[in-house]
Amino acid sequence: MNAAHNFLRQGTKGESTRAQILDAAVEMASEGGFEALTIGSLAEKTGLSKSGLFAHFGSKLELQIATLDEASRRFTEAVFMPAMKMPRGLKRLGALVENWVEWPARAELKGCPINAASEEYNHQPGPMRDAVLERQRLLERELAKAAQMAVDVGELAPETDTMQIAFEIVGIVLSSYRCELLMGHELAQKRALTAFNRLIDGARSPSAKVPAAARR
Amino acid sequence: MNAAHNFLRQGTKGESTRAQILDAAVEMASEGGFEALTIGSLAEKTGLSKSGLFAHFGSKLELQIATLDEASRRFTEAVFMPAMKMPRGLKRLGALVENWVEWPARAELKGCPINAASEEYNHQPGPMRDAVLERQRLLERELAKAAQMAVDVGELAPETDTMQIAFEIVGIVLSSYRCELLMGHELAQKRALTAFNRLIDGARSPSAKVPAAARR
Repeated sequence: MNAAHNFLRQGTKGESTRAQILDAAVEMASEGGFEALTIGSLAEKTGLSKSGLFAHFGSKLELQIATLDEASRRFTEAVFMPAMKMPRGLKRLGALVENWVEWPARAELKGCPINAASEEYNHQPGPMRDAVLERQRLLERELAKAAQMAVDVGELAPETDTMQIAFEIVGIVLSSYRCELLMGHELAQKRALTAFNRLIDGARSPSAKVPAAARR
Repeated sequence: MNAAHNFLRQGTKGESTRAQILDAAVEMASEGGFEALTIGSLAEKTGLSKSGLFAHFGSKLELQIATLDEASRRFTEAVFMPAMKMPRGLKRLGALVENWVEWPARAELKGCPINAASEEYNHQPGPMRDAVLERQRLLERELAKAAQMAVDVGELAPETDTMQIAFEIVGIVLSSYRCELLMGHELAQKRALTAFNRLIDGARSPSAKVPAAARR
């Protein structure tokens, strides 16, 4: 449970219970995926009655969708919102990547629940896949937009393929999640940042070929 | 079902039935993951009786492990074996990446079952996670070894961090799997190869800075 997160929610008792249930649900989904997230398994974890949970979520699917929404809200809060405070360009793009690599650990989750959902539903047509694809599309667009801003401010070369940059950033983050268990969180994070810096160095505009460290 | 694949298996009728069951199991796991792969769901898909399946696999776990073994065998056959026929160095490394990106499609699978298993079990301790981690470790080692060969033959610079290359290749492949639904298989494959070429171009030894295409 994330106390600070719940504190932000002010509302009726029902809303606060719902927030607590969703916190537990996000935690469960990040460990065991969304298919294992059932009214029954959640009742067991939270100690609430199944009928109590049914009052909040009418079905397994409704619970799954609400959990994905809550995970997305937390993702936006942890990854995008702090990056938006950085100046447009490579600093913002770099903050996005770093926050994305780090957010499951910072949120004390075992893994990224949105990544778990993507893997689970990519090949299973239905409302969960539609919801997941919509989020992937949005994320890809935001990454390309942040890369385009780095072009616009003259840090990346004008001919930069920003969709290719987005594609490679997705790979860097996924590899850091995947390799974390084998090599430990710190090394996975370090490798991710090395990869990102290399990606960016290859795309810098000729007038901005100064090592990133020197420009901080 | 993969007829050519079954044809290679010569043995008793029991062995051939087992091979057919495992083909169906790999297909199921590549779509819905390994947790959804139960004796019951497999009986439904194959039309065999549950008791018949229990004769081959004593438990859900045994079935899952056997399916992961079979997926790994096919992965080795589709990805590593053809690459081993290429000369040591960048040609072999490039073949590994290309075969890895392509193998689920070539095997007519909806996704890579080993990738599905990695995502499912990374955060769930137990025999399946152990088996998955062992395969990830092996794959990482083989990728780094192939990159080291490219260093040894003078194509990559001596200071190349081959574990970093392996880390980034994992990311490129995962991103191609992840993005395939959004952008289509062909574009995902193209982006993966672009990313790989860029990765390699940045690591070439100074004496080998000739475009790859010119050296074929």
